[in-house]
Amino acid sequence: MPYVNIKVTGGREAPTAEQKAELIRGVTELLGRVLNKNPATTVVVIDEVDMDNWGIGGRSVTEIRKGS
Amino acid sequence: MPYVNIKVTGGREAPTAEQKAELIRGVTELLGRVLNKNPATTVVVIDEVDMDNWGIGGRSVTEIRKGS
Amino acid sequence: MPYVNIKVTGGREAPTAEQKAELIRGVTELLGRVLNKNPATTVVVIDEVDMDNWGIGGRSVTEIRKGS
Amino acid sequence: MPYVNIKVTGGREAPTAEQKAELIRGVTELLGRVLNKNPATTVVVIDEVDMDNWGIGGRSVTEIRKGS
Amino acid sequence: MPYVNIKVTGGREAPTAEQKAELIRGVTELLGRVLNKNPATTVVVIDEVDMDNWGIGGRSVTEIRKGS
Amino acid sequence: MPYVNIKVTGGREAPTAEQKAELIRGVTELLGRVLNKNPATTVVVIDEVDMDNWGIGGRSVTEIRKGS
Repeated sequence: MPYVNIKVTGGREAPTAEQKAELIRGVTELLGRVLNKNPATTVVVIDEVDMDNWGIGGRSVTEIRKGS
Repeated sequence: MPYVNIKVTGGREAPTAEQKAELIRGVTELLGRVLNKNPATTVVVIDEVDMDNWGIGGRSVTEIRKGS
Repeated sequence: MPYVNIKVTGGREAPTAEQKAELIRGVTELLGRVLNKNPATTVVVIDEVDMDNWGIGGRSVTEIRKGS
Repeated sequence: MPYVNIKVTGGREAPTAEQKAELIRGVTELLGRVLNKNPATTVVVIDEVDMDNWGIGGRSVTEIRKGS
Repeated sequence: MPYVNIKVTGGREAPTAEQKAELIRGVTELLGRVLNKNPATTVVVIDEVDMDNWGIGGRSVTEIRKGS
Repeated sequence: MPYVNIKVTGGREAPTAEQKAELIRGVTELLGRVLNKNPATTVVVIDEVDMDNWGIGGRSVTEIRKGS
């Protein structure tokens, strides 16, 4: 019954459909293996966050990628 | 003062503006009725999640809808 | 397959187990009625937030309740 | 190491890239000043929420802005 | 730079510190392997949710575990 | 109408009630100053996360603090 939310940068860094399917499969297996959680009710939601909208170290990823 | 976040699948399964208004009204009434919460400060945020980005049972909704 | 998160104040304002069960039932029915979502995979998570940890209008609920 | 999520209305009310950078800088400084948190690992994610998808007082922001 | 939030049932079903460390390690490795994300800035937050506060199928986990 | 969620480590690193009030006031002012948002409907929720439940770099904060 776990619920997992994964946030990654989107735009030109967005994962492909195949990569997203692999994340969903991987994290569902991890919860089954470590905590014996039932995969059938494990929910995963992936959010792709625009690089202007993600900050770390006080700067947006857009600024960081520019090396500004 | 409650805060409610509702996540549903988007894309071709996305709710209409009318359905979203009905969810906002319904959940605000529910919190008023059950917990006597003030509707004026009840906040509701609806997220529409792409079918590639939502997983259950280890597969994305895109894969599930295909019957793959 | 919807996922709903409800945040309300906790502590002495916390809902009872019966009220929480009623919120879970009510919001699951709402999503079934408005969007035809399958109740079996509708997930609801309720968070009870300490009154020191919730702010509105720039003040914590603890301060607001004191009328300070 | 803090994580901050800021949700604001999007669409024609969406903040500019400059305003988002200022929010990221401001909240990172706030956490450094108040809690002595290391800016290098402070993460900020801004979500822009469609006005149909945000409700307060039982109505969507779209309805509120119309004065309906 | 990914951010991952994992919600599982708590109380007598709560994971041990070792299991939580294994989830953190596992999901960080998964994001490194699938998306080449830097482990150093991958953040994981685990929430343990009381069984009264988690619902699926319109009932709380407390009710489900009782078989009521 | 913004909604802000701030997650910080809890336990012996938990902020005091005064520090939490200062975060609430500071982030509400920031949103008023940068985006002209109405403080009266700005909601802030602070989550204190157990050090076993927070991971960065593939390790829990508990392990990191031990220098293990």
